Amino acid sequence: MSGQIEAKLKELGFKLPAAPKPAGSYGPVTRFGNLVVTSGQVSFVDGKLLYPGRVGDEVSEEEGYESARICALNALAQLKACVGDLDEIKRVVRVEGYVHSAPGFQGQAKVMNGVSDLINQLYSDREKHTRIAVGIHDMPLNAAVQISVWAEV
Amino acid sequence: MSGQIEAKLKELGFKLPAAPKPAGSYGPVTRFGNLVVTSGQVSFVDGKLLYPGRVGDEVSEEEGYESARICALNALAQLKACVGDLDEIKRVVRVEGYVHSAPGFQGQAKVMNGVSDLINQLYSDREKHTRIAVGIHDMPLNAAVQISVWAEV
Amino acid sequence: MSGQIEAKLKELGFKLPAAPKPAGSYGPVTRFGNLVVTSGQVSFVDGKLLYPGRVGDEVSEEEGYESARICALNALAQLKACVGDLDEIKRVVRVEGYVHSAPGFQGQAKVMNGVSDLINQLYSDREKHTRIAVGIHDMPLNAAVQISVWAEV
Repeated sequence: MSGQIEAKLKELGFKLPAAPKPAGSYGPVTRFGNLVVTSGQVSFVDGKLLYPGRVGDEVSEEEGYESARICALNALAQLKACVGDLDEIKRVVRVEGYVHSAPGFQGQAKVMNGVSDLINQLYSDREKHTRIAVGIHDMPLNAAVQISVWAEV
Repeated sequence: MSGQIEAKLKELGFKLPAAPKPAGSYGPVTRFGNLVVTSGQVSFVDGKLLYPGRVGDEVSEEEGYESARICALNALAQLKACVGDLDEIKRVVRVEGYVHSAPGFQGQAKVMNGVSDLINQLYSDREKHTRIAVGIHDMPLNAAVQISVWAEV
Repeated sequence: MSGQIEAKLKELGFKLPAAPKPAGSYGPVTRFGNLVVTSGQVSFVDGKLLYPGRVGDEVSEEEGYESARICALNALAQLKACVGDLDEIKRVVRVEGYVHSAPGFQGQAKVMNGVSDLINQLYSDREKHTRIAVGIHDMPLNAAVQISVWAEV
């Protein structure tokens, strides 16, 4: 079977974007053994960064959730670029979440649910991924959220 | 053999807690291949977060060390929940430490020794784990310390 | 073949340092399966930390790049200490970069190119590594940069 995860994504109202280019002299995604890991993904849409700024300040918690979901779509695009088809992904095993946070903001877990909820909907019959989430004071490109995704193939 | 690591933990005066529930829509721990990785663990004791705040401010360095040790106990509980017995763990290979830090606090390594010292005592005949430790300005749930543990089975 | 990567390093004008000792009760590097991962590496040169402080404040972006390159040299020294010869490293698969950042500094990607550019020069015929890079408000030892490197053997 192929294309089923991407079909589910469309049913949910989302479209897999083109995989964003790296922001420096590194690669966007790689596979080693049965693992695929992405570089840090931010909320680029068609080359433009959406929701720049700190969550809890210029960016609301709801917008942070949206931003995290865009990061997830970009990470999925990287996984597909690496393995050819999202159905090749057995499951996501780990999500790392870095949330650009205003001083005192403690809702990083809620923001990162923007990533986890989407992954859970797509791979609803698999074991859930693990996650770390921390608040970052200063973020490359002023992105609201940066994530890295580890998947098993 | 089974139960030996947990017996050693008791000798050291500690008790393995119930594995804490995740703070969002993710799983607490997972295994892929010969690796087990935990989600971010904070210093929950019986569902209550001990030592909330920043190390170097409301939380002293000594309390930070205690907090880190509680994180380690929770991580060990997750490992056990995943593999059934801590004796199934060949060794801990990596500890990631995120220390909620007051501006100017630079003792993150000492705080994180609260994790490493306990692991070293439990698995004293194994190769030591690797570690990263950074200071985090804003932390989910206002936790003093968050850790993630990678182990080999 | 052996010593070729280290010979290339010399051609580039660099010398592999002695592998720095850990800053706490953990090991500097470990191998599990086909992976080697280093602990956090900072810019120690002969036991002295170069470029202490925040990038964008006491440390310029150019000095941050230099600092990141020293971190990379120390990480390479750890990889060699673990596997015996840098030619045993198939490729670097992931670099984690923590940049001690002045409030408002957003050039973490440029700083971290100090790591990536060197790795790319040494392993120019391999697939590029992935990377995350975030700004850290408070860093152990007041280091400007901390990195962790994952490699495949």
